[in-house]
Amino acid sequence: MIIFGERINGMYRDVRTAITDRDKTVIQTLTREQLAGGADVMDLNIGPSKGDPVENFVWLAQTVHEVTDKPLSIDSAKADLLVKVVPRVREALPDTKLVINSCTAAPDYMAKLVPLAAANGTAIIGLTMDQEGVPGNAEKRVECGAAFLMGALEAGIPIEDVFIDPIILPVNAAPKQQIHSIEAIRQLAMVNDPPPQFIIGLSNVSTKCLLNRLINRTYLVMALAAGLNAAIIDAADVDLVEALICAEILLGKSLYSDEFVKAWKMQKGLA
Amino acid sequence: MIIFGERINGMYRDVRTAITDRDKTVIQTLTREQLAGGADVMDLNIGPSKGDPVENFVWLAQTVHEVTDKPLSIDSAKADLLVKVVPRVREALPDTKLVINSCTAAPDYMAKLVPLAAANGTAIIGLTMDQEGVPGNAEKRVECGAAFLMGALEAGIPIEDVFIDPIILPVNAAPKQQIHSIEAIRQLAMVNDPPPQFIIGLSNVSTKCLLNRLINRTYLVMALAAGLNAAIIDAADVDLVEALICAEILLGKSLYSDEFVKAWKMQKGLA
Repeated sequence: MIIFGERINGMYRDVRTAITDRDKTVIQTLTREQLAGGADVMDLNIGPSKGDPVENFVWLAQTVHEVTDKPLSIDSAKADLLVKVVPRVREALPDTKLVINSCTAAPDYMAKLVPLAAANGTAIIGLTMDQEGVPGNAEKRVECGAAFLMGALEAGIPIEDVFIDPIILPVNAAPKQQIHSIEAIRQLAMVNDPPPQFIIGLSNVSTKCLLNRLINRTYLVMALAAGLNAAIIDAADVDLVEALICAEILLGKSLYSDEFVKAWKMQKGLA
Repeated sequence: MIIFGERINGMYRDVRTAITDRDKTVIQTLTREQLAGGADVMDLNIGPSKGDPVENFVWLAQTVHEVTDKPLSIDSAKADLLVKVVPRVREALPDTKLVINSCTAAPDYMAKLVPLAAANGTAIIGLTMDQEGVPGNAEKRVECGAAFLMGALEAGIPIEDVFIDPIILPVNAAPKQQIHSIEAIRQLAMVNDPPPQFIIGLSNVSTKCLLNRLINRTYLVMALAAGLNAAIIDAADVDLVEALICAEILLGKSLYSDEFVKAWKMQKGLA
């Protein structure tokens, strides 16, 4: 299971302000919390922060990199911005693995971002949507995921660097849609051997919901059972991470021990 | 989702002693706790209690029935005992729905218990095992489940009264086996339209495990996502029931509301 720590995101006010003020302490404290919770990759999103977005991204990547050698995920919905940012971060941090988060299956997005990933040796996340928007069913998600995967492989990106994100919608705004993303993972996992990586931006499922942490961990367990093997989560949410560890044991992906939470942390060098 | 309250089980010392002492207060207090947590059916198991097992079962059923009209599940692995107990409880409580828990797909078990269920108008739970014991894979579970279902339907038991239990083994004693039960539910749900009911004895997954409540609720969520629609659980475990309620919403089986836990309880007449 690959945990992307979600907390360095300009949608949070503290992060947005820290980016504007170039306040390393806030960013690095949050980074350490995500790492302590088990983050394997740090997701970086500048959100609606002020200033030059390219410079903001480069500063954020360097600031996080000062406390960890872990891979960094450059998170933006703007393809043109990613095209500018990725080579700059690649140049500033030549030995750091990068992830482009995200592309879609729309031809114009793929034309810009897939070659960028291939040229820079980065991993890439493909959302299961195209120019027509977010699908209302599992079938179209599978179709978009398959199209993205084929394009990425044809460009020479190794399959372990290809992540498919089946796009979860908030349960309050789009009820009865959440099962489609899980079904898309199951189907795409079944027809691809070896499968690509499957990732979700977990907190989307509970945006503006009460009991959001319960919703997050319940959904994560379901998605893991369908074949999910990566997630952008708040790694500092202990209940969530424990549910994840427990699910992996029940899925036969790691062996049970009486102290399985402790064993998992030891294995990760966290305890 | 049909919740079978598991707590009236002679494997618990307090229940065992109460049966021997004919102490109604203990049994009825535990019953009320299960009902308050949302139990739809009360599972009754005399465990290794002293005295005549038939009389113990009849007393237990009457004692529980004094505080609720809900269905009662007569829980024993002994077919010959069930053959004696069910007509007695049926006679004592003629208007109470009963569930026989459990039969298997072994021909001698089915020959005794399926006609018993059909003759008494009771529901029946079939474990997905036969004379060869508990299967080590999903395929044999599916085969046993299908054989049991066919036999029950041929005997005239309506499909809504047929429960399939894919037998969960403890994760400490039988690691990497838990996924087979989930896979069996998924496959049996896929090929039968309408499907039978699917039930698990949840706490088996964590017998003698540390962090057993975490294991229980994580497994329950996975099984629900595969098609489980009944479970023998401790309905007084609030975290477990909340995970269940949340899972049903994320599976699109009930609509999200900000106060979804409260809404569920109101719908059940519990709040």
